[in-house]
Amino acid sequence: MTTARYARWDGTGRPFTVVEAGVPGSLRPGEVLARVDLATVCGSDLHTVRGRRSSPAPSVLGHEQVGTVLASAPGLRCADGTPVTPGLRIVWSVTASCGRCDRCVRDMPQKCAGLRKYGHEPLDPDAPFTGGFATHCVLLPGTTIVAVPDGLPDVVASPASCATATVAAALAVPGDLAGRRVLVAGAGMLGVTAVAMATERGAHVVAVDPHPARRARAARFGAAETVPAAAPGAFDVAVELSGASASVAACLSALDIGGVAVLAGSVSPGEPVPIDPERVVRSLHTVVGVHNYRPADLQTAVDFLAAHQDRYPFHELVAGRYALAELDSAVAAATGAAPRQAVVPG
Amino acid sequence: MTTARYARWDGTGRPFTVVEAGVPGSLRPGEVLARVDLATVCGSDLHTVRGRRSSPAPSVLGHEQVGTVLASAPGLRCADGTPVTPGLRIVWSVTASCGRCDRCVRDMPQKCAGLRKYGHEPLDPDAPFTGGFATHCVLLPGTTIVAVPDGLPDVVASPASCATATVAAALAVPGDLAGRRVLVAGAGMLGVTAVAMATERGAHVVAVDPHPARRARAARFGAAETVPAAAPGAFDVAVELSGASASVAACLSALDIGGVAVLAGSVSPGEPVPIDPERVVRSLHTVVGVHNYRPADLQTAVDFLAAHQDRYPFHELVAGRYALAELDSAVAAATGAAPRQAVVPG
Repeated sequence: MTTARYARWDGTGRPFTVVEAGVPGSLRPGEVLARVDLATVCGSDLHTVRGRRSSPAPSVLGHEQVGTVLASAPGLRCADGTPVTPGLRIVWSVTASCGRCDRCVRDMPQKCAGLRKYGHEPLDPDAPFTGGFATHCVLLPGTTIVAVPDGLPDVVASPASCATATVAAALAVPGDLAGRRVLVAGAGMLGVTAVAMATERGAHVVAVDPHPARRARAARFGAAETVPAAAPGAFDVAVELSGASASVAACLSALDIGGVAVLAGSVSPGEPVPIDPERVVRSLHTVVGVHNYRPADLQTAVDFLAAHQDRYPFHELVAGRYALAELDSAVAAATGAAPRQAVVPG
Repeated sequence: MTTARYARWDGTGRPFTVVEAGVPGSLRPGEVLARVDLATVCGSDLHTVRGRRSSPAPSVLGHEQVGTVLASAPGLRCADGTPVTPGLRIVWSVTASCGRCDRCVRDMPQKCAGLRKYGHEPLDPDAPFTGGFATHCVLLPGTTIVAVPDGLPDVVASPASCATATVAAALAVPGDLAGRRVLVAGAGMLGVTAVAMATERGAHVVAVDPHPARRARAARFGAAETVPAAAPGAFDVAVELSGASASVAACLSALDIGGVAVLAGSVSPGEPVPIDPERVVRSLHTVVGVHNYRPADLQTAVDFLAAHQDRYPFHELVAGRYALAELDSAVAAATGAAPRQAVVPG
């Protein structure tokens, strides 16, 4: 057994503890042993650490990471058909799904009846490698694996497994965006990714964020306009990625006739948002909640980053380079200008 | 010019006045002159008459009717391709659309930039035949016309032009209903129609209504269960047809993971409804507003009534048989057990 390490999270207000443990010497059918080359601290890791949502403790957090295959059960393939073989650089989905339950069959694998989520499971000291904040991760059957092209650096690839794929899922909802007026609310990690992705799909993208520095960043990611507040009734599509209830309300107000609001930012408790049913009806509005994503979205995410990393400054979204033992510092740094901090566990 | 009559509505609190006028001796391209054989008083006519929403006055109300073609501009066809010729029994859409504006091109003809709506236009004394509460109606270019099969009685066919087609539009939103748990909120005209239509599409339909007599009626229209209040989290689809804000809130609460709420009843001002954005996001909920309908929905409506009129008691939904001069009585009677009152203008 290789000796490996993971960062144990013991609950809100307590520091991470690095623990040594052995990785399994053999894999079960459908499993992959990956080395974690680089992980990024996602906003929902911060929600968990800060106690803004309930999550099991102790556990191994982290679900945005890029890694290298060390060993694989036979016959596994990436989403694009590439065989999963030792040495392959990969990202993997937040969720592992059974593929057979009612929800999987109805195209909601991210809500599988037997769902496992990386970085979200209670710690099993005998099988602890279930999160990105560790030197290794054991990928379970039903995990989507996507090969990472050589030219895509770890810091750009890592957010694909959560942020970029969630944005891909959100922008899959409204369909064709060519010539459409798209509002993106919140110019954080997901927001600027959505700005770039919608711009590349031909939309006229307006980014809304109260912070001038974030608006400037949205402009660097292709926003046609950046504003502190959105004009009511002016948009075909509004994508809410900040999670603030006031922003959800503003997105609903921003819709024109036939408009579609995609809500993806509200992943911790917030104030209720009043809707006017008559306006929803008469204006043919659609409101769709998106949480996590489907397998195809992860492939879309990696393809998008690989194709457009030179056009938009994705590298500036990830700062720092923390060792596993410095995870507390990485979390503390997450209030800074960059929306992601990088952790290099090895 | 044939002498004809229309019922002029002069505003809330004022009686209808029957006025004689000549129908046009010639038609413009795309127009049809129809005799109105029977009209039904829709719930939105009642909203207008009772002042629950603003509407132009004077005007000719009525937009649910069945009629007979008296004359047609050349080359016109029904939605199923049947030529529009004198003597053909027809229903027609609430809306007339240009087919060329941005909204029409984007499949929202019911929100056409140049929209005309039967029963909703300000009165033009020189061209007054724009509503169902008249002996005649001039159908404008861009009106969907559907032939009525011989075996479908006027009282069953008339609501197709609004109620049944709107239900068809609402039930087009969630797609396949086979085996799905469908909540229908409000067992009025639209509600029981939705119960029957969803049942025929293989759904397990639960009808919710506070009134026992309405619940009993929903059972006659095929509801598997009828309840005074819906169980939270138990439905794949919730169709709101009562228009009450409390019912909208209950429909949103009723959705299971991946659930779709279709709102179609809220066509007059009501209380705002609070939504929990985190629940919408984490539960992958979809909320869709439906108002009026597209051409295909009217054909679906007539086909459905023709196929299933013997199985469900659609005839019991329409009571009375009022002359045009008795329209005030028809409106007053609309608080009774039947959701529709019939007016026979000729």
